[in-house]
Amino acid sequence: MNTVELIRKKRENFSLSEEEFRWMISGYVQGVIPDYQMSSFLMACYFRGMSEEETLTFTRLMLHSGEVIDLSEIPGMKVDKHSTGGVGDKVSLILAPIVAACGVPVPMISGRGLGHTGGTLDKLESIPGFRTNLSITEYKKVIKAIGLVMIGQTAEIAPADKKMYALRDVTATVECIPLIAGSIMSKKLAEGIDALVLDVKTGRGAFMQTYESSLELAQTLIRVGNGFGKETVAFITDMSQPLGIAIGNWLEVVESVECLCGLRGNSDHSSDLMEVTSVLAGAMLMLGKRAKTIDEGIALAKQSIKDGSAYRKFLDLVRTQGGDVSALENLERYPLSKHSIEIKASEDGYIAEIDSLELGLTGIELGAGRARIDDVIDPKAGIVLKKKVGDAVETNDTVAIFYTDKETALHAAKERIAKAFRIQSVPLKKKPMIVSYIDKSGVREWKK
Amino acid sequence: MNTVELIRKKRENFSLSEEEFRWMISGYVQGVIPDYQMSSFLMACYFRGMSEEETLTFTRLMLHSGEVIDLSEIPGMKVDKHSTGGVGDKVSLILAPIVAACGVPVPMISGRGLGHTGGTLDKLESIPGFRTNLSITEYKKVIKAIGLVMIGQTAEIAPADKKMYALRDVTATVECIPLIAGSIMSKKLAEGIDALVLDVKTGRGAFMQTYESSLELAQTLIRVGNGFGKETVAFITDMSQPLGIAIGNWLEVVESVECLCGLRGNSDHSSDLMEVTSVLAGAMLMLGKRAKTIDEGIALAKQSIKDGSAYRKFLDLVRTQGGDVSALENLERYPLSKHSIEIKASEDGYIAEIDSLELGLTGIELGAGRARIDDVIDPKAGIVLKKKVGDAVETNDTVAIFYTDKETALHAAKERIAKAFRIQSVPLKKKPMIVSYIDKSGVREWKK
Repeated sequence: MNTVELIRKKRENFSLSEEEFRWMISGYVQGVIPDYQMSSFLMACYFRGMSEEETLTFTRLMLHSGEVIDLSEIPGMKVDKHSTGGVGDKVSLILAPIVAACGVPVPMISGRGLGHTGGTLDKLESIPGFRTNLSITEYKKVIKAIGLVMIGQTAEIAPADKKMYALRDVTATVECIPLIAGSIMSKKLAEGIDALVLDVKTGRGAFMQTYESSLELAQTLIRVGNGFGKETVAFITDMSQPLGIAIGNWLEVVESVECLCGLRGNSDHSSDLMEVTSVLAGAMLMLGKRAKTIDEGIALAKQSIKDGSAYRKFLDLVRTQGGDVSALENLERYPLSKHSIEIKASEDGYIAEIDSLELGLTGIELGAGRARIDDVIDPKAGIVLKKKVGDAVETNDTVAIFYTDKETALHAAKERIAKAFRIQSVPLKKKPMIVSYIDKSGVREWKK
Repeated sequence: MNTVELIRKKRENFSLSEEEFRWMISGYVQGVIPDYQMSSFLMACYFRGMSEEETLTFTRLMLHSGEVIDLSEIPGMKVDKHSTGGVGDKVSLILAPIVAACGVPVPMISGRGLGHTGGTLDKLESIPGFRTNLSITEYKKVIKAIGLVMIGQTAEIAPADKKMYALRDVTATVECIPLIAGSIMSKKLAEGIDALVLDVKTGRGAFMQTYESSLELAQTLIRVGNGFGKETVAFITDMSQPLGIAIGNWLEVVESVECLCGLRGNSDHSSDLMEVTSVLAGAMLMLGKRAKTIDEGIALAKQSIKDGSAYRKFLDLVRTQGGDVSALENLERYPLSKHSIEIKASEDGYIAEIDSLELGLTGIELGAGRARIDDVIDPKAGIVLKKKVGDAVETNDTVAIFYTDKETALHAAKERIAKAFRIQSVPLKKKPMIVSYIDKSGVREWKK
């Protein structure tokens, strides 16, 4: 076999066999196939896609490029959530403690910032001392002790995906359904889960910008999950504007803590965030057999915020994984960015649109994300929204504030963020946050 | 600007501005943009193409990434040829000495093996001592002295293309018209030429496998050439079977020497090679003002073989560029491959097809080409055809012999080469070698 021939084969829209995929994937893991060949292969996959059989083969090879963790000694259904990632999506930070506090173990292996969307690991690591690089032994110990663990991919977990994920991020090969499915499912299947809830984002700012492509991704993921014997369900949720108010790693931790404490998320600019978090928690608690229905699960989730058990679980997690809990208890002590710039409305009216993609990309320029594999993230950098879609604004009202240490980024960021807010003269109707619910029996509209 | 955004922009089929192309090209030359980002960008270009304006911009930036050589002190029109490359295409080795012997200076900067097709430099370097890495000062000195020079891209000539060409070769991003046009024309325009003849191959084994895509490439090249003020004409020639008999670097030098000496190329299996060489020489001599018509040029070319001046010019070239002329005068002294294997016909009939692409790819496996940037070529390795399309064969007739040092390649090569010969029971009509002639006034069929 010959790597160039296989790239050409995919480019020319032929299906690859298991043996051919193995050549590409194990060659890449072993370093025989260099990044530059893999990235052109990935771009060819972007344009050509994969058949259902190719997607399953690809996922299986990614999964078995590493260890598959066995958590059978931990009683009960272990359930995880995966989000396809959106701008300002800090759901995992709030959701995992809620579900664990309600008694369903959550073993969560997350990723880093991918393109314009953030990564849970980068957010957690903005907490001083927080270690995401636990060994598998430590991982098992933590989930056994507190019913919750949040780590990054270890060298043992789907090493093919670890390497490929970093590459896709910087080669504009992220938004491809079979690659996304293989990447997500190989990690999730390796965690030791029994069931999985998916949050597939749709709209500008999500990987999948149209409803149709989000649905296609959700259905692909559900087919792969069920194909491996793990009950998998999905919500399609709106990402036409950023979720909640914060974009940027530490800024998102702050918002998450406030939500976990019940200080935010009730009829304010974090309500959309908490609406998504609640349904996902409800579904996880249902799959974890703690609730008979999603609605019953939602009620349990809300209770865990009210009684403080979810926040205590989050502090447990931070403490157990080496983080400085006092940083969370004294949010004001965290270092400040050199620059904090307010963006003003240029006219009177109503916020009609907030371009998440543009804000996510601007976030990279501010230091909150990566343009290259080895870019270093500035945890303080990012954007906080002061207005969201539907809000009335007057000229010169502050619509957002951005934070950065980068002098050179100021001018462009100011323009880009201002432009990301589209203002119209007439009021508008709010879109539903949860668009639909999908399980193996089909798709249904989600009505709340 | 952000590299990932620009890759995505091309991927999403938007046109790139001059400033955006400059970011990509100069970033790549400076090493700020790594190979893996450039290769996904190139694959996106493969799928999306470029507008006419983008192609000109791209070419200009590639050209001005380095030095543009001034040969105005050398009297007369300097004319070069470029071939899009085919399997067994050793035309340059024969053509350049012919044209120079007829009095038109030929400044030729060639490339290395690109995918399944060979490169003139690799062929020249199979001659012991032959130096293709002359400095620009040496380059000018040689063409001034003997009216002919054949080198590789120096660091000064289109460094962007040099780096990108090597990358495209190993990432299956070769067969893309604007990339080919930018690559060819940036090098050719830098040479100091006044006019250019193109040999655009068509058929399996060529970059452009269909006549339509070959014509599109020819027209793109002619537009770019004339856009830069250099008279450019093109022939579309057949590459549905390998040109001549030899595939592989030294093997092709041997065939070329025999043709230059008039020992081959007249009603034998090298006739197709010499037919193409003659028309290209005719056109170069016409553009170089040594002949009024292409036909008149062809007659001059033939004379230069007959009177030995073309072969003497080739020996001049080899001597002047440090090569060992005695190796050419004693072809039998060259080292032999460890293995030479005969491939036999499996049935009686007529050779209906010889799959050049397959033979070119097999050549890589034998050691005659590169699958990776840093692969080392074995100059001795390759394939010699004993039968060509139209020949009658009987079962067990030898159709080809291959040469390699690679024990591990023997089995697969045997099967692949045998399969590359398709035999049919009825005789067939020969296809014309020269399909059409194109200049700025249009396309016309070529009749001989």
